[in-house]
Order: sequence, then C-alpha cells, then structure tokens
Amino acid sequence: MSTVYTPPIDQVRFLLEVFGYPELVATLPGYEDFDLDTAMSMLDEYARFCVTELLPLNGKGDRTGLRFNPDDGSVTTPPGFRAAYQGFASAGFAGLSLSAEYGGSGAPHVLSAIASEVLIGTNKSFSMCPGLTTGLVEALEAHGTDELKAVYLPKLISGEWTGTMCLTEPQCGTDLGLLTTKAVPEGDHYRLTGTKIWITFGEHDLTENIVHLVLARLPDAPPGIKGISVFVVPKVLPDGTRNGVRCGGLEHKMGIHASPTCVINLEDAVGYLVGEPHKGMRSMFTMMNNARLHVGVEGVALGEAAYQNALAFAKDRRQSRSLNPARQEEGQAADNILVHPDVRRMLLNAKSTTMALRGLVAWIGVQIDISHKHPDADTRDRAENLVALLTPIIKSYATERGFANVSECMQVMGGAGYTQDWPVEQHLRDVRIGAIYEGTNHIQALDLVGRKLPRGGGQLLRVFMEEITGLIRTAGKDERMAEFIQPLKAESKRLQQVTMEMAGRAMQDQEEAGAAASSYLNLFALTTLAYVWARMCAQVIDQEPSPLRREVLSTARFYYQMVLPEAEVFARRVGVGKSVVMDFDVADL
Amino acid sequence: MSTVYTPPIDQVRFLLEVFGYPELVATLPGYEDFDLDTAMSMLDEYARFCVTELLPLNGKGDRTGLRFNPDDGSVTTPPGFRAAYQGFASAGFAGLSLSAEYGGSGAPHVLSAIASEVLIGTNKSFSMCPGLTTGLVEALEAHGTDELKAVYLPKLISGEWTGTMCLTEPQCGTDLGLLTTKAVPEGDHYRLTGTKIWITFGEHDLTENIVHLVLARLPDAPPGIKGISVFVVPKVLPDGTRNGVRCGGLEHKMGIHASPTCVINLEDAVGYLVGEPHKGMRSMFTMMNNARLHVGVEGVALGEAAYQNALAFAKDRRQSRSLNPARQEEGQAADNILVHPDVRRMLLNAKSTTMALRGLVAWIGVQIDISHKHPDADTRDRAENLVALLTPIIKSYATERGFANVSECMQVMGGAGYTQDWPVEQHLRDVRIGAIYEGTNHIQALDLVGRKLPRGGGQLLRVFMEEITGLIRTAGKDERMAEFIQPLKAESKRLQQVTMEMAGRAMQDQEEAGAAASSYLNLFALTTLAYVWARMCAQVIDQEPSPLRREVLSTARFYYQMVLPEAEVFARRVGVGKSVVMDFDVADL
Repeated sequence: MSTVYTPPIDQVRFLLEVFGYPELVATLPGYEDFDLDTAMSMLDEYARFCVTELLPLNGKGDRTGLRFNPDDGSVTTPPGFRAAYQGFASAGFAGLSLSAEYGGSGAPHVLSAIASEVLIGTNKSFSMCPGLTTGLVEALEAHGTDELKAVYLPKLISGEWTGTMCLTEPQCGTDLGLLTTKAVPEGDHYRLTGTKIWITFGEHDLTENIVHLVLARLPDAPPGIKGISVFVVPKVLPDGTRNGVRCGGLEHKMGIHASPTCVINLEDAVGYLVGEPHKGMRSMFTMMNNARLHVGVEGVALGEAAYQNALAFAKDRRQSRSLNPARQEEGQAADNILVHPDVRRMLLNAKSTTMALRGLVAWIGVQIDISHKHPDADTRDRAENLVALLTPIIKSYATERGFANVSECMQVMGGAGYTQDWPVEQHLRDVRIGAIYEGTNHIQALDLVGRKLPRGGGQLLRVFMEEITGLIRTAGKDERMAEFIQPLKAESKRLQQVTMEMAGRAMQDQEEAGAAASSYLNLFALTTLAYVWARMCAQVIDQEPSPLRREVLSTARFYYQMVLPEAEVFARRVGVGKSVVMDFDVADL
Repeated sequence: MSTVYTPPIDQVRFLLEVFGYPELVATLPGYEDFDLDTAMSMLDEYARFCVTELLPLNGKGDRTGLRFNPDDGSVTTPPGFRAAYQGFASAGFAGLSLSAEYGGSGAPHVLSAIASEVLIGTNKSFSMCPGLTTGLVEALEAHGTDELKAVYLPKLISGEWTGTMCLTEPQCGTDLGLLTTKAVPEGDHYRLTGTKIWITFGEHDLTENIVHLVLARLPDAPPGIKGISVFVVPKVLPDGTRNGVRCGGLEHKMGIHASPTCVINLEDAVGYLVGEPHKGMRSMFTMMNNARLHVGVEGVALGEAAYQNALAFAKDRRQSRSLNPARQEEGQAADNILVHPDVRRMLLNAKSTTMALRGLVAWIGVQIDISHKHPDADTRDRAENLVALLTPIIKSYATERGFANVSECMQVMGGAGYTQDWPVEQHLRDVRIGAIYEGTNHIQALDLVGRKLPRGGGQLLRVFMEEITGLIRTAGKDERMAEFIQPLKAESKRLQQVTMEMAGRAMQDQEEAGAAASSYLNLFALTTLAYVWARMCAQVIDQEPSPLRREVLSTARFYYQMVLPEAEVFARRVGVGKSVVMDFDVADL
C-alpha cells in the first residue's frame, strides 16, 4: 500500500503568525515559555511521532479491526495500538495543552487543535481515544471537586488512564432530554444503572483503567433536559475492585474500524457526582465547543491526507495528451495528468478549502486562549463571542467539506483511489462520521441560528462583522487586494441582509428558522472562509515574491472565483422558506 | 440487519406513460407484444425475483466477499450467488431486451434500463455480471461475424455463459491509445498476450465459461487509438480446452465486494477478431452509450434504495420536539423526526433528484428504441441525437448525485446509517465507483463538450432545445404550470448563452473547454432535470386530484426552488475561464 503524508508544519507556522499567535504568547500570562519557535518544535516532535508510529498502523488497524470477547466484555485493539498508545502517553502528548497543575504541558489550546490535525491525519481511529479523554479532563477541571480532580486528573493527563463520554442511549441521541439512566445516592457516591450506546473507546486494552463521564438522572430529577446530572464512573474503583460497568458489544461501522464504539452497560456502578445535581447539561456545554472544534479538525485532517495522496498519484500518472499543444511533452505518448484543467480543479477545490479551514481553526484556537486568559475582560468576551459563533460553523462545514474533498481526491485517482492500495478509500469511510457525531451538522446549524445569533441581541454577529470591516478598512487600501476585498465586502453585506431577513421570519415562526438553518450555516461558512483567505492574503501582499506568497494568492484566487460563488445558492435557499418542505404531505414522501 | 426495498414500479408506469412508451410500442415494428400492461407484468416478475433472491444476498455478499485461489486462479463468489445467478438466467432475465433472434426476449431497450434499477437497487455487485455480458452481446451483434454470433450469442443471451470487457491495462485507463496487449495472427484466429486490469467478473464460479472482449494491437497496428482491434477470447475454447487466459488476482475495493475486479493475464490466448482490424474503438463506441446509461442508473438505484431506508428509519424515529407547537404530539416526550424541516429537506433532496433522473432514464431509454427501430429516418436521427447528447449527462450527473443522495440519506439516519445494521453504508461504498468507471465523469464532460456539442454544427443541442421550447409552448398555456415553465424558460435560455460563450472561447483555445466542461455538464444536467419535471407536471396538471398528482407537483416544486438554483453556480464557474487553474504553478499545489 502506498501512503503519503507530510505534516503541514510550514503552513501552520504561517497561519499562527497570521492569526496572532506571537501576540498571544507575548500577552497572556503563563504562555511565556511557548513562543512560536518553541511551539513549532513541540509540534514537530509530535508530528514526527505520529508519522513514525501511528501512520503505519492506520491501514492495518482498519483491516484488522477490533475483537470483542462476549465472555468477559473485553475489547482487543489491533496489533501495535497498545504499544503506540504507551509511546504517545510517555512522550507527554496526552497532556498537550492540558493543565500544568496536574501534569500537563500547559501549552496554549490552539496548539492542541493544530496537533490534532496531524494525529487524525495519520490515524483517525487512534486519535479518538486521547480526544475523548481531553473532553473528560476539561469537564472535571471545570466542575469536579478537588478530591475528584486529585484522583483522576493526573492519571488522565499523563495518559495512564483514558476517558469516555457516555451520553447517548438507544432512545436518545440528539435529544438528551429523553435519557433514562438512573443514579441512586449511596453514601458519598451514587449507584448508576442503564445502557449507553456509541461509546467511543468505552472498552479497550490500551490502559488498565477507563474513566467514564456519564449522564444520568437522580431519583428526584425533573423530566427532560433540566434533570440530567453528570457522574464520573471508573472501570476500576480507587480500591482496585472492578466497577459494575461492562462492554456489551461493538458497533460494526463503515469506518474508524480501530476505534471501538461500545455498548456500555451500567449495573449498580459506583459513580461520583460532577458539579451540581440536575445541572449536568451546563457542564456538557462547557466542553462542547472544544470537542466540536476538534471534530471539525477531522475534516481538515482527512481532506489534507487525501489531498496529499491524490497529488502524489497525479504527479506520477501520465494519461492522454494536453489539450494545449504547447504543454504536450515531446517524446512521450501521454502527458502528466496535471496538464488537464479538471484534475487541477479537483485538487484546488480540496486545497483551497482545506487550507482556509486550517486557518479558521488557527484563528479560533487563538481566540479560545484569549477567551480563557486575556487580562482584559472585554477582550476575553469578544474572543468568547467569536469562538461561540464560529464553532458550529467549523464543526459542520469542515466535516461536510472534508467529506466532499476526500471524495474529490479519490476522483483524481480514478480506480486506484477506490482500492485499498491507497489510503483514500479509508479516509472517505473514516471522515464520514464527522458530520454525524458530536451533534449532527443540522444541530450545529440550529445552535448557530437558534442560540448564537440571538445571544446578546446579535452581539456575536456584530463582533464578527467588525472583524471583517476592520480588515476591509485596512487591507482595502491596497489596490492589489481589491480582487479579494471587493467580493468579501459584497458577501458580508449579503450575509447581514440574509440574517436580518431570516431573523424577521423566525420571530413570527420558529419553524422558518429550522428550515433555513443548514443553508444559512453554509452561507456563513463560505463568507467566513473568504475572510480567512483575505487575512492570509493581506499578510503576504507586501512581502517580496516567494513561493509562499504565490501559493497563498493563487489559492485564494481559486477560492474566490470557484468556491465562493456557492454562497449564492445557499442565500437563495434561505429565502425559499419552510412551505416547500412543510406543506409536503408525509404520505407523499 | 434491517433492509427496506420496494421496487418503484408504480412510478415507473407513470414515467413510461409520460415519456411515450405506449406510443413506442404502438409504432415500432416488433414491439407489438410489449404493451404497457405486459411490460409492467414483466417488470413485476423481474422485480419480485430481485427482491426475493438477490436482496437477501446483498449485505452477506458484501461482508463475505470473494475468495481468490492463487494456485489455479479461481475465484469463489459468496454463498448463494451461484444459485441466484442460475435462477436469474433460467428465468430468462439475462436476455431481457436482447435479440429475440438469438433467444432473448426482444423487449424494448427501455425496459432493460428500468429493470436495471431494481437489479442494482437490490444487489449492485450481482448486477455487474449481467451488465457486462449485455455489453459484450451488443458488440458481437453489431460487429461479429455470423459464425461468432452463432457460437456465442445464444449462450450469452441465455446466461449460460457470461461476458467481460477487457480494456484497461496498468498504464492505460482513460487513455486507451496507450494499450500494449498484442494479438498475433495464427490461421483463422489470433494469439493474444498481455495484462488487463479492473476486469469485472473476469473470473468467477457462476458459469462454466466466460467470454472476454479484449482490446489489443495487431503487429502492424498504427500507434495510438487508431491501432486498436477487438477480439473475443473465451475462457474455454469451443473444443473444450482451457484457453490461455487466467486471473492473476483481485482488487481490494471500498465497495462492490461481491463483484470480482480481476487482473486478467493473457498468455498466447486464442482470440477471434470482431469487426475490422484497427477499427476496434468504433465497436467500443457503439455500445458505450448503453453501458454509460446503465452506469447512470446505478446512481438512481442506490439513491432510491438509500432513500427508502432513510425514510423507513425516519418514520420510526422520535427525537426532539417540533419547533411548531401545533405539530407537537400530545402525550409524547419527542416528536417523529419528520416534523423537523431539515430532515424533510434532506429526504427531498434525494427524492426530487432520484425521481427526475429515473424520468430521464425512461425518456432516453424510449429514445434509444426509437433510434433503433422507428420507420422514419428523421425520427431515428432525432432520437439518436438526444441519446448521444444526454447519455454523458445521465452517466455523470446520476452517479455524482447518487453518491450525494446516499450520503444525505445516511445523514437522516444519524449514527445508525453509519453502521452495518442498515444497508446505507454499503450503498455509499457501492455507489462511489460509478463516477469513476466507464469513463470518469470528467471524460463524460469532455465527450459532451468536445464531441457532442460540435457534432453537426450544434445539431444535438438544437434538437434538445426544440424539445424544451415545444413543452414551453404547449404546457405554458396553463397558468398553473407557470411556476415550472417560467424558470425552465430562463434556465434554457441561460444554457444556450453559456454554451455560445463557452464555444466561442473554446474555438480560440481548447483548454478553455477542458476547464469549463465539468461545470458545464452539471449546468446542463440541472436544466435537463427541470425539463423532465416539467413534463411530469404537464402530464398530471389536468388530472383530478390524486396522491400521484400531489406528489409530482410538490416534489417538482422542491426541485425548482431548492435544487435548480445550483445552476447559477455552475454557470458562473463556466465563465471563470482556465487561468485560475492553468496559471497555477504546479510547485504550489
């Protein structure tokens, strides 16, 4: 099997510069030790590990898959995964960006988002385990008692133990208000009983203990979403005995074959309350932004991995002559397929969106750090607003576009891409789940339209528009920027108009917002990526000619001319209104 | 595993009426015995077989896969496939629409295109075998000697033997001019040596003999595409001895796991020339239209199959409350997910395009029969023009849209759709190949732009536009049709303008046509489907209210308002021109 993957480290350095990483570490307390050079060498080391240890296991893990033993509920990961995990943990990578107080590196969060891309790009299945653990760590840090933190955080952050998130039940996925797992008080702890499904790395052989974060209801819980509490439920209790939590089986999935998706049965399992009773959803929302950002990164990571393989294939493949006699290579029966405009179009579709989404992740990653640590409260608020607004967009658009990009890259490779001789068919299977889990993409759209837009009377959109107008004001002075600034101006104006129009209809009828939400999110995403490209262009426009400058301007040009026009369709769809779907008789479906 | 599939037979009857099947069988010689009722009962019987015998093997075949024995080059199909194939052949289904002279049913070709959908929808892997055999039969009928026909056609048409198409070699897929397989004359036959790859059902255990149609070069062949000849190479020779043709291995693919994709090694294999020396590509083009139409049907078939499963899931699933209090069901904690506008949007995206593409297949299927058999030469020509023009559109757009539709249906199902508990993840893997084989979708676009548009000075487009203006003239008189006829008018006008503009640029520079072709094809497809919908609407608009009338008008409305706007993007992309991709430095990719 041929597999190509080079971590996009040089590009990352550029993006961190564009989106203010140097200012971040200069301004924020505690980040003094993470200047850009240090950050890059950390990422370099991390990436080297991923490429050396994880990439070779990716295809093998997919084909070997997992073994479930129904007798003892154990799950065996593919050969090599346990050793790779131990290596990952002992290098300290599990604690990247996690609290230094409990043994983490304490590096800026943006670095973990950036590192994620390489982890996922080399081995998506493997990446799920530390990804989920990070979610648990954040929930505990924010809402756990000091005692819980002292017991669990050091071992989770060192990677000695791993974590899960146990939300879904057979009758409830999107709608957690329907969950029925029970938690009954008993002394200083609780006893939990119920069935959880879709539990990623809910059981495995990578570590001796697994710590579950479980949503459940106390006996006196009000019904619905307002009666959910959160518990920590370890597989092995502090006294070394086995807790009443057991894997009941694995899902058989289209992709991520080396990532166990477990049914987890809780039978009188001992659990410890995290945060206040019935206020569990609040703890969940705390970490959802981060988890959703990381799911968005999946689309970037696998889009990039597929792109690199398609490009390597294309550079090597000769087929047909160029339509342009000047490009026909003498002495050859066929030209390299990169002479064909459509091959380039497909590659640039992937490249121009992947690179912009990576920039968006860098931007929002930096804003997350600002929102946590900036000394000035207004600056923190402003950053938090941007994070809240753009997180559903990253999660949804990057996973949808990532899937489209991997498919486009497969198309570049023809039949070869459809076979296991190349990793792209696995990328396509692995990337597809991103649009579904961690809140389906439509749930993201409802979050954007129903929660984020109305917040503070439109405060979030205002902050976002200020970013755009600020850039237009400064970069717009340079004539060479006009090809980007003019359409950005037009698109942001349209986005505002469409928002007002949609909000007006939604005030009369919430269903109108539901009907428009997904199209609106895509419109918003395309405008956002146009802004990201314009910022990158503004950064290089004054530089001396260089390969980077040329690459940025040419790729941005492709985005503006070939991708951004899709905004037109989404804007029109937002305007169509609900009747075209809601007046439709269900019997006629 | 849950699998739902009901052959869309009622809809087929309606579509056959709309697109002139009754007139066809009344007018064309030899079709007297195939009136609509007879045709429907033939299709019914065929569909019953598919649902009873093939559907249950679909998931099993995917998971069991194929076994290759390197010692003897044999391939074992999954359990049940051999018996199912024997049943298929003995019911006479292999010869549906094939020449009555050699034992086929002699039914109109449109019925085989329609039947194909059900075959593929129940078992895509299985469908590949009779599909390829049909291609071989058509090539032999059109170009074989009487002797070859007498030996091979009866057994291929009865299904006693199967056929393959051996075109691709490692160094040549799209560009057949590069092929190197040699054919040396020896008495009344030839000896062939070379390696062919991607040979579907090149080896299997369904029948005792396999007949390969092989492209190769004679010793005196001119280089390139003009030096290719076609040969019949049976696995077992007429005297019962084994020929020098042997399977060297199987590809491991993302999907169609029960369809063997073989490396075929020819070693001094005896072959018989079909047609004239060096004129092989002509024979190939004869049957390509039909093969491409059938590949397009794959997108319709799997889009439909996935849709039915997603709809069944949606009808059963409750999650969250409706945003509209009036739709909230009393006494329930959650509403059926069909109350959510976005779930309907996704389903209707799939439904509105699948139904229109099925209509397009029916229309072009009828035109194929007219082009073969109509007593009037001008009518035949006109039909042939429509077939030639719209075949690349069906192949390309239906496979691309089919893939998007299956993915959209998976999204409706959330995590369930991503698991093997439902067949949709298999549909997604199986449908993806359609955009790649039988000429990649971009090759279809080049065929449309480079061959079909220029033919006869734009004759094909003229005929197509006459169809549209004819409909606008007649149906446009009815005010109730305005919501369809007005946009159809605008879109067809734009299509003409874009065509003229693109043709003007292409005359200066062929590379401009190459850069625009894929976007142009999509623009053309969207306009074509708008026409198909308008014809369906015109058929029902005067009818009494009925579920069918309501379904057709509501689905058409969705298509016109939510799907057709995509034309805007493709039109803009055609206008962008080649520089955005061709001025891009390869080093910057």
